[in-house]
Amino acid sequence: MIQGVFSAATTPVGTDGQVRLELFAEHCRALLDEGCHGIALLGTTGEANSYSVSERKALLEAAKGFGVAGNQLLPGTSTCNVPETIELTSHAVDNGVLGCVLLPPFYYKGVSDDGLFRFYSDVIKGVADSRLKVVLYHIPQVTQVPLSHDLIDRLLNAFPDTVVGIKDSAGDIENMKAMIQRFPGFSVLAGADPLLLPLLQAGGAGCITATSNLRADSLRQIWDHWQSGDAEVVAKAQERINDWRTLTNAYVQLPTVKTMVARRRGNNDWLNLRAPLVPLSDAERGNVWAQMTQLGEGQA
Amino acid sequence: MIQGVFSAATTPVGTDGQVRLELFAEHCRALLDEGCHGIALLGTTGEANSYSVSERKALLEAAKGFGVAGNQLLPGTSTCNVPETIELTSHAVDNGVLGCVLLPPFYYKGVSDDGLFRFYSDVIKGVADSRLKVVLYHIPQVTQVPLSHDLIDRLLNAFPDTVVGIKDSAGDIENMKAMIQRFPGFSVLAGADPLLLPLLQAGGAGCITATSNLRADSLRQIWDHWQSGDAEVVAKAQERINDWRTLTNAYVQLPTVKTMVARRRGNNDWLNLRAPLVPLSDAERGNVWAQMTQLGEGQA
Repeated sequence: MIQGVFSAATTPVGTDGQVRLELFAEHCRALLDEGCHGIALLGTTGEANSYSVSERKALLEAAKGFGVAGNQLLPGTSTCNVPETIELTSHAVDNGVLGCVLLPPFYYKGVSDDGLFRFYSDVIKGVADSRLKVVLYHIPQVTQVPLSHDLIDRLLNAFPDTVVGIKDSAGDIENMKAMIQRFPGFSVLAGADPLLLPLLQAGGAGCITATSNLRADSLRQIWDHWQSGDAEVVAKAQERINDWRTLTNAYVQLPTVKTMVARRRGNNDWLNLRAPLVPLSDAERGNVWAQMTQLGEGQA
Repeated sequence: MIQGVFSAATTPVGTDGQVRLELFAEHCRALLDEGCHGIALLGTTGEANSYSVSERKALLEAAKGFGVAGNQLLPGTSTCNVPETIELTSHAVDNGVLGCVLLPPFYYKGVSDDGLFRFYSDVIKGVADSRLKVVLYHIPQVTQVPLSHDLIDRLLNAFPDTVVGIKDSAGDIENMKAMIQRFPGFSVLAGADPLLLPLLQAGGAGCITATSNLRADSLRQIWDHWQSGDAEVVAKAQERINDWRTLTNAYVQLPTVKTMVARRRGNNDWLNLRAPLVPLSDAERGNVWAQMTQLGEGQA
């Protein structure tokens, strides 16, 4: 079972738009030191779809080259097309990753479960490697392509040793609870930080979230102590996470997260984003950084 | 000015999921013979986003290799990321295409005009070739990322020799008329067949549509005769187009169009689609083919 606290790691680019591989690898290493069980690189927060196939491979290799073990990596390897998704997924499997997080193809809307099943099936059969573990990725507010429970059921029946979990970023705890009940042994991972504690209490497997770029320590505290620890300490940790998460939504979330990471890591390359996203304005950045000071700047 | 009747050509794949390059090239050649001024390959109807970068290049080269002139081609060359969009667009420009049809990046939703401007600007500056002519692609019902008139205004001011037109597939003639009035010399091309005649009457530049895969002859009749010809003949041609278009919506549109092309060209490789789309069922196919017979099977 894939379980734990995973960081939806952000991806640094320079003002020249080029990926900063070393800075990325250092960030991954630091996230593990701060408490993450693993790095879910190249998700929505990681701007995966704003990078080319070759850049995505280079980012994964950079993390590995900097001492992150393959089995600490949970990369997003989907594209809208089957051949490049097979290429990226095979590359990740060859690098010994823990699993691959697979978005549905997100160009066409209103596609049938038959069509989505076909996509995942074509990718899994195309990779043709028993080491592949697939984490489905449900984020309908972005993709506009939801993953139904009937589709998951069908995939689990067809590929019981391969399809092992789901990242649910829709933010509805009831949807996660329903999957936990219907699919025993299936890893349900929350995409929203405020839901980590309630999800664990409901039998969930952990989280893949953006705020972990800033407060992995608190997320790990919840993970380590939610069952046997001091309930007050755990509640406090969840509260702290929620405060940081609220700040990430002060402006457009991704630029805000990166602006906060820039302050945290002391490197302004983190301020940049690939189009169609844009960095915060100077005033917005000043405001976010001032609020970080009030929150204690990410110190435990 | 880019103007005329362009076919949103479909793309054939075998039951093995592999692109049928020769069959595609033959289809392009036939579409020109049937009356199209050019081929807008690799759009939504062409399932562009279901193909890899290398497959998209191979399809364009196949059309050229089969006697279609570069300046008869209007390929879709966008992806969600800047570097691969530059790569595909540069490749198309190097092949002498008439223009490139550029979707906005469509993963993130609610992105700002600043962000979209940045995407187009990064691509145009990255291609850095005065031969590049950009046709914007507005299809918000699929991308969920509309292109505002203010964004177009900004792009026209920044790149007056490069941004030359728009394919508007939203189906709202008022939106097209407003662009014709606001942006003199800008080519407004309808993405919906029933709008060709009213758009031409309003000063529009032509169309890029799916039904041209089946009835290019009638679209060309409208184009050739709408000003000086017999009004009744033109109205009849538009009516015929509309009937065929209605049939393409009998089931999910893309599989239906391809099913109709299969009958028209006498080759069942046309029945296949890449995931997440799925072919029609046997019963659906039988029904569509029966209705084609009633419509006269695409004969002029």
